[in-house]
Amino acid sequence: MQFEVTARDRRCPARSGRVTTKSGAFATPAFMPVGTAGTVKALTPRQLDEAGAQVILANTYHLFLRPGTDVIRKFGSLHRFMGWEQPILTDSGGFQIFSLRDNARVSESGVRFKSHLDGSAFSLTPEDVVDIQSALDSDIQMVLDHFAPHPASHPQDEKAMRLTGAWAARARERFLKTNKGNGQFAIVQGGLHEDLRECSLRELAAMDFEGYAVGGLSVGESTAEFRRILKPLAPELPDGKPRYLMGSGTPEDILFAVENGMDMFDCVMPSRNARNGTLFSSRGKVRIKNERHKADPRPLDEACACYTCRNFSRAYLRHLFISREILSSILNTIHNIHFYLDFMAKIRYAISSQKFIDFKENFLSLYKGE
Amino acid sequence: MQFEVTARDRRCPARSGRVTTKSGAFATPAFMPVGTAGTVKALTPRQLDEAGAQVILANTYHLFLRPGTDVIRKFGSLHRFMGWEQPILTDSGGFQIFSLRDNARVSESGVRFKSHLDGSAFSLTPEDVVDIQSALDSDIQMVLDHFAPHPASHPQDEKAMRLTGAWAARARERFLKTNKGNGQFAIVQGGLHEDLRECSLRELAAMDFEGYAVGGLSVGESTAEFRRILKPLAPELPDGKPRYLMGSGTPEDILFAVENGMDMFDCVMPSRNARNGTLFSSRGKVRIKNERHKADPRPLDEACACYTCRNFSRAYLRHLFISREILSSILNTIHNIHFYLDFMAKIRYAISSQKFIDFKENFLSLYKGE
Repeated sequence: MQFEVTARDRRCPARSGRVTTKSGAFATPAFMPVGTAGTVKALTPRQLDEAGAQVILANTYHLFLRPGTDVIRKFGSLHRFMGWEQPILTDSGGFQIFSLRDNARVSESGVRFKSHLDGSAFSLTPEDVVDIQSALDSDIQMVLDHFAPHPASHPQDEKAMRLTGAWAARARERFLKTNKGNGQFAIVQGGLHEDLRECSLRELAAMDFEGYAVGGLSVGESTAEFRRILKPLAPELPDGKPRYLMGSGTPEDILFAVENGMDMFDCVMPSRNARNGTLFSSRGKVRIKNERHKADPRPLDEACACYTCRNFSRAYLRHLFISREILSSILNTIHNIHFYLDFMAKIRYAISSQKFIDFKENFLSLYKGE
Repeated sequence: MQFEVTARDRRCPARSGRVTTKSGAFATPAFMPVGTAGTVKALTPRQLDEAGAQVILANTYHLFLRPGTDVIRKFGSLHRFMGWEQPILTDSGGFQIFSLRDNARVSESGVRFKSHLDGSAFSLTPEDVVDIQSALDSDIQMVLDHFAPHPASHPQDEKAMRLTGAWAARARERFLKTNKGNGQFAIVQGGLHEDLRECSLRELAAMDFEGYAVGGLSVGESTAEFRRILKPLAPELPDGKPRYLMGSGTPEDILFAVENGMDMFDCVMPSRNARNGTLFSSRGKVRIKNERHKADPRPLDEACACYTCRNFSRAYLRHLFISREILSSILNTIHNIHFYLDFMAKIRYAISSQKFIDFKENFLSLYKGE
């Protein structure tokens, strides 16, 4: 896995670049649509490709449980299993220690889960997570990490951060022994404590991962807290490596993070909102169920060239949503994913044109919503 | 609307032909995927086209209620509203008198419904149904019909059949005054009474519709009863007009009906079964949730060239179904619709090659299922 910075904005730490993996390359800043269970919900791989996706995210924990590592191993890779030949990043299961915390017990050695599917118990060590990701053959593999639920005290955040560091060292060792051409990213933790973030970063940077992520944000903290932590941290992440902000995904958050030097993003928001009838547009969010769209022949977003906007009206999208038709989820997801990927392409073009700040200000001035 | 018979099988009344409408032509025998509410569930119009659809069915009753005739009128046609530019046939609402019979009251003048959506009351006359279909601008428009629930006595079936005839005359009169280039089909009723079927046919044939349908079958009767009614009736329908068997759709039923001279079919089975995980294949039905498919890398049907079979394994399809992913409904529907449309193409080729009986026997000998 390789990374090169291809352009830098003179007025801020924003940069654009290129990550090259064995499954192909993708341009940064990049947004990764979320395909937790080996499918970006409601899209075929072809629709995902046409919406502009170059890299997607899948989840180690979920795929380990279902269909199971052995099934995917039989196919040689997650790519072949799900019919997506381009790069895949897999999250580690660390986030599930947080999101499924009533069913997770953390110890020095690893984490013990009760399956959210059938209640069966199983353990995952940092080494197990590396081995599962080897079976998936994911191009970018996240280490198993841990963070305390927000709000957490300094000692709680420090404990989780130290465990994340110890697990990262073990995961790195296993990865370096077994890796066949993929990359591994570490995850900086430390909660809302700047000193802990700095400490976590120093420890992980010394292990020389292929990339660095910021975890434990967008988990309940305020925008001000999010920005206070990210602003000094982002530019300190190793310059020659991709920098990945995990799970943050409003357009506003992405603009802020890019401005401070982050390169990669993932979020369920565009796809989940699509299924709930909340659509992104250059003028802000649109709630398609609103009566005002009932007979509106205009496309959802006149500035959008996606399949949905090229072929269907707001009135039809509203009809599908009100009628709870599956096609509602499909067309809405195509649009929202396209909106995000087009947004990232515009960001990259702005950076390489030395116009990122102008782009950001212009975007935010139009992006108001209903 | 025009129809020509292009080939006849020497050994039976099977024939192939071509229906030409203002929205394009389609070859017969034809299967029409069902798009009740202005969407063939789980497919984009492009996927529907790629699966091989040349004509689809939508429903007057459902579209009248939602989004409402006025909304679609604003778009000029249902085609433009739903993004499907090829031919559309609209059913009349007659079937809903049967399927929603607790909320429908029939009188000489028409039918009074309580909406299945919000309980509001409204009336539909045979003329109303013509006017709504004019607003939809559907290429083939079915008259409002009526049939008694199975099992029905001779007097019950006779009464419904006579009402169907009277309504057909009124619908025809309205259609001939207002039509702009579309076709109108009558519906032969009479239940399981051969004499009533014959009487209904004679009455309707005299009104010179563009096509003739057989209604009131596949509503609970046995296969033997279905065949007893259809076998003598089908070849008696006007030879120079398309003959449409409404709502029947197992492959076995279609083969039987084609052999007796029917040309057009619709059924929710391929799409509904797809969503329930029952898939059609040249070897019979496959229940994709079965454990045996868990790690099976083979396509669902090795004889199939659809997008699903070209790109995905049984193991992946099972994973999606078990995980209740939307993509399960999508890929399964693509396959089942393609299977049906490919089946119809093979039937047409067999007829034009004078091999229909051989094709039927060969198909049925392989089509066994799990």
